[in-house]
Amino acid sequence: MSLLGRNLIGQAQVLGLNAAFHGIEAATGEQLQPGFGGATAEDLQRACALARDAFDVYRETSLEQRAQFLERIATNILDLGDELVERCMAETGLPRARIEGERGRTVTQLRLFAAVVRDGSFLDVRIDPAQPQRQPLPRVDLRLRNIAVGPVAVFGASNFPLAFSVAGGDTASALAAGCPVVVKAHSAHPGTSELVGRAIQRAVKESELPEGVFSLLFDSGRSIAQGLVADPRIKAVGFTGSRAAGTALMHIAAARPEPIPVYAEMSSINPVILLPGALAERGAAIGKAFVGSLTMGAGQFCTNPGLLIAVEGEGLQAFIDSASEALGQAAAQTMLTPGIHASYCRGVAALQAHPRVVQLGLGIEGGTHQGRAALFATSAEDFIADAHLREEVFGSASLLVRCQDSAQVSRVIEVLEGQLTAALHLSEADYPAARGLIPQLELKVGRILLNGFGTGVEVAHAMVHGGPFPATSDTRTTSVGSLAIARFLRPVSYQDFPQALLVAALQDGNPDALPQRVDGVLKY
Amino acid sequence: MSLLGRNLIGQAQVLGLNAAFHGIEAATGEQLQPGFGGATAEDLQRACALARDAFDVYRETSLEQRAQFLERIATNILDLGDELVERCMAETGLPRARIEGERGRTVTQLRLFAAVVRDGSFLDVRIDPAQPQRQPLPRVDLRLRNIAVGPVAVFGASNFPLAFSVAGGDTASALAAGCPVVVKAHSAHPGTSELVGRAIQRAVKESELPEGVFSLLFDSGRSIAQGLVADPRIKAVGFTGSRAAGTALMHIAAARPEPIPVYAEMSSINPVILLPGALAERGAAIGKAFVGSLTMGAGQFCTNPGLLIAVEGEGLQAFIDSASEALGQAAAQTMLTPGIHASYCRGVAALQAHPRVVQLGLGIEGGTHQGRAALFATSAEDFIADAHLREEVFGSASLLVRCQDSAQVSRVIEVLEGQLTAALHLSEADYPAARGLIPQLELKVGRILLNGFGTGVEVAHAMVHGGPFPATSDTRTTSVGSLAIARFLRPVSYQDFPQALLVAALQDGNPDALPQRVDGVLKY
Repeated sequence: MSLLGRNLIGQAQVLGLNAAFHGIEAATGEQLQPGFGGATAEDLQRACALARDAFDVYRETSLEQRAQFLERIATNILDLGDELVERCMAETGLPRARIEGERGRTVTQLRLFAAVVRDGSFLDVRIDPAQPQRQPLPRVDLRLRNIAVGPVAVFGASNFPLAFSVAGGDTASALAAGCPVVVKAHSAHPGTSELVGRAIQRAVKESELPEGVFSLLFDSGRSIAQGLVADPRIKAVGFTGSRAAGTALMHIAAARPEPIPVYAEMSSINPVILLPGALAERGAAIGKAFVGSLTMGAGQFCTNPGLLIAVEGEGLQAFIDSASEALGQAAAQTMLTPGIHASYCRGVAALQAHPRVVQLGLGIEGGTHQGRAALFATSAEDFIADAHLREEVFGSASLLVRCQDSAQVSRVIEVLEGQLTAALHLSEADYPAARGLIPQLELKVGRILLNGFGTGVEVAHAMVHGGPFPATSDTRTTSVGSLAIARFLRPVSYQDFPQALLVAALQDGNPDALPQRVDGVLKY
Repeated sequence: MSLLGRNLIGQAQVLGLNAAFHGIEAATGEQLQPGFGGATAEDLQRACALARDAFDVYRETSLEQRAQFLERIATNILDLGDELVERCMAETGLPRARIEGERGRTVTQLRLFAAVVRDGSFLDVRIDPAQPQRQPLPRVDLRLRNIAVGPVAVFGASNFPLAFSVAGGDTASALAAGCPVVVKAHSAHPGTSELVGRAIQRAVKESELPEGVFSLLFDSGRSIAQGLVADPRIKAVGFTGSRAAGTALMHIAAARPEPIPVYAEMSSINPVILLPGALAERGAAIGKAFVGSLTMGAGQFCTNPGLLIAVEGEGLQAFIDSASEALGQAAAQTMLTPGIHASYCRGVAALQAHPRVVQLGLGIEGGTHQGRAALFATSAEDFIADAHLREEVFGSASLLVRCQDSAQVSRVIEVLEGQLTAALHLSEADYPAARGLIPQLELKVGRILLNGFGTGVEVAHAMVHGGPFPATSDTRTTSVGSLAIARFLRPVSYQDFPQALLVAALQDGNPDALPQRVDGVLKY
């Protein structure tokens, strides 16, 4: 399939007449062909109008039809074969195994949501039958279901060109909920975006759905992003990216005549707490495993372990020695974009220049576009005193906060902002301390994990990839796992409807065989 | 119980040193005793600090303990007996039957949430067991539950002195979720608020809970309201009131360093659509029933039918004649406060003076503080052209929009903002038209009801008392019914926890006998 460099607006392929831009080969900084024309305001209008038109039909497609559509997208992505993998490798600098793994994850995600749609629990059907004899007043017949919120704007993420981009988790969950999607492609991987977009576009056609169910817009500036979030037809936003960009979108959404929810996943340094028992037992092993997690994908994960918190002692020294040694053998890796690389270098330089921070280890020096891993340390007092030390350095840099005792560990945790994950490394001897820390961490993070690192995010029913601000803009939800569908639903209640006017999901006899809550009792 | 006029801060009764104010007898405008001292910034600090302290213990109380606490509040409110009813009647001007009914509703609501807590579905327990043999990578053990978001600020509403105030739906659902509550009393019924607040305060003590689970602050100005929403320890807000006040709170919450959700129920004119078949069949009967709904409680309901939409014809004339006649016999009623009364009079006067609006009927003239019901009419074109005609007039005034045909009905609906309810009056002959309108209404409202009026809001599992902005600030939720508990919860995921560190809700063997979703399949 040859790339066209065009916006996908419904079934059309539209050359954008605004500033053209190119994908950049991450390893060399050179332009990739073709150029991508930036979408115009008219393109945006057309995509939103088509999405609104498609919404009424799409949201009432049968669950089976919608599930098959999601599965068809998965198949079409796999059918892109090596062309997708190679373009994606070129645009991101990520190795083949990672891209193939991420493709697998993307496809798994689409199939998971197909299963969620077929299951039907997400509709939360509730029926409170009429009680005409009730005293002092008869009770009406009330039935409830969730409906789709409306067209959703999705923003591709730089660091997951497949799993959090055009056909990523936000798109899959919004489509599963019954929402048409307008994607703003991330300009760091336009070719990857076009290929995946065309796979979805084809699935829309093959599934005989209204064309506006999916559109894809390119823009290397901000106007399409801002215009999408402000458009009155858009009813929710899914975003993964920087804190600055995420909060800018939150402000646009809040200032609309009709404010809408923004699900922005932004900034997280993912504290890893090393408890004394674990350090004494296996400090060196943890140090080595830590460097594996830190350097995975050049550290460009939202769950990268950017912060270590530990109590001084022999075990900690063993950890430091082992981590520093492993770091010394860690190859530099190509980063996603020149901008991300430059930002990483600035962050590392600031830590190196910080008077209260010492450098514990460095990775092997690399080429122009490569990030060199780095580990720093500071004291708990200094960390608590300087909020700058709590800012994310996106890439494979981490800061160890050395504490005098476990009370100081708790004080360090207390000054942290919201996080996606926290990890505790512990032995059985540490359980009493852990019992004190876990409730504290619950209020700071979306996921707590033991004796591991947050960098693997399982696509599952019990996954929370979320957390208090600024980890995300909405702590009530997750952007990974089946629960993500809840972001794009709202409940509607139907009172005293005759059977003839009810949708099948709410009819007596339960023709769609859905889970239902009748008078508050779940029937499954 | 003699009233003290004091803030309830944990178990203390604290005289507020800021500007004192009095409850006002609605019927006479005279001051009621005692004066209520306005809470100071220090009082606010203390209430929030106690709430934060109480949170860690309260959120992990057993479900049975929490359910009993809610039931105890209900019992203590009933134990207040006639003193509560009489003070509430004096402060609101509402008749005894209404206050007794609302007290019953408040108690029912607390008991419903006790049942919701015992059921445990709200925890949304999910378990995805480890799969150590999975290829290419083993799967971790993941478990999820909902936890309480944190201390919640609740604002008493003027129009439901019991069911949407100190121990109303917001308080009941927040306490059920495991959140301490700090209530800002509505200054229109401070005595009622104190009585109910002391019933809760006593229940906290009797239940041996940390005192900060509940506090109640008085303030006749805005500083306590603004300070509460801005306080970093407050993690969510429940509000029922005006659009101006609700959006002001939304802005404060969005501008915090950590933005928090605001559940504001604000403005709704609740369209009632009269379809031709229904009008032809029973136009006069509908007219009479409409006036009953319009004038109930002096029209001071958020679900009051402030808008009628109908197609011209004989049936409509029968409706108008009947409604006008019933209106002519409708007694004026004391309104909640002089401010609400003045605002209602201004709204009615503006409609009377509007060049494109005609007056169809008026209720009987009343005394100084009484609202006189009124019905107006305008054309669809004029209604569409003038957004002012779509603003809520809080009280028993309604506007009939006369349409030429059903296409025009749909265009009128299209210009409406979000609403709590829409009602359709229809006969079987109207079903085809209704099938076109219902999907349109689903996107505008939280509840659609047939052949009735929205003014009865059943406290049930399938109730949605919510809707798109400005009906509420968050269309994904409801403020009435068991689903309201979801507003104060957030999911947390636990990865690779040993049994010894898991809360009971997530342990193998399900010791609390909770509904669980295991590998995505619900076990009940």
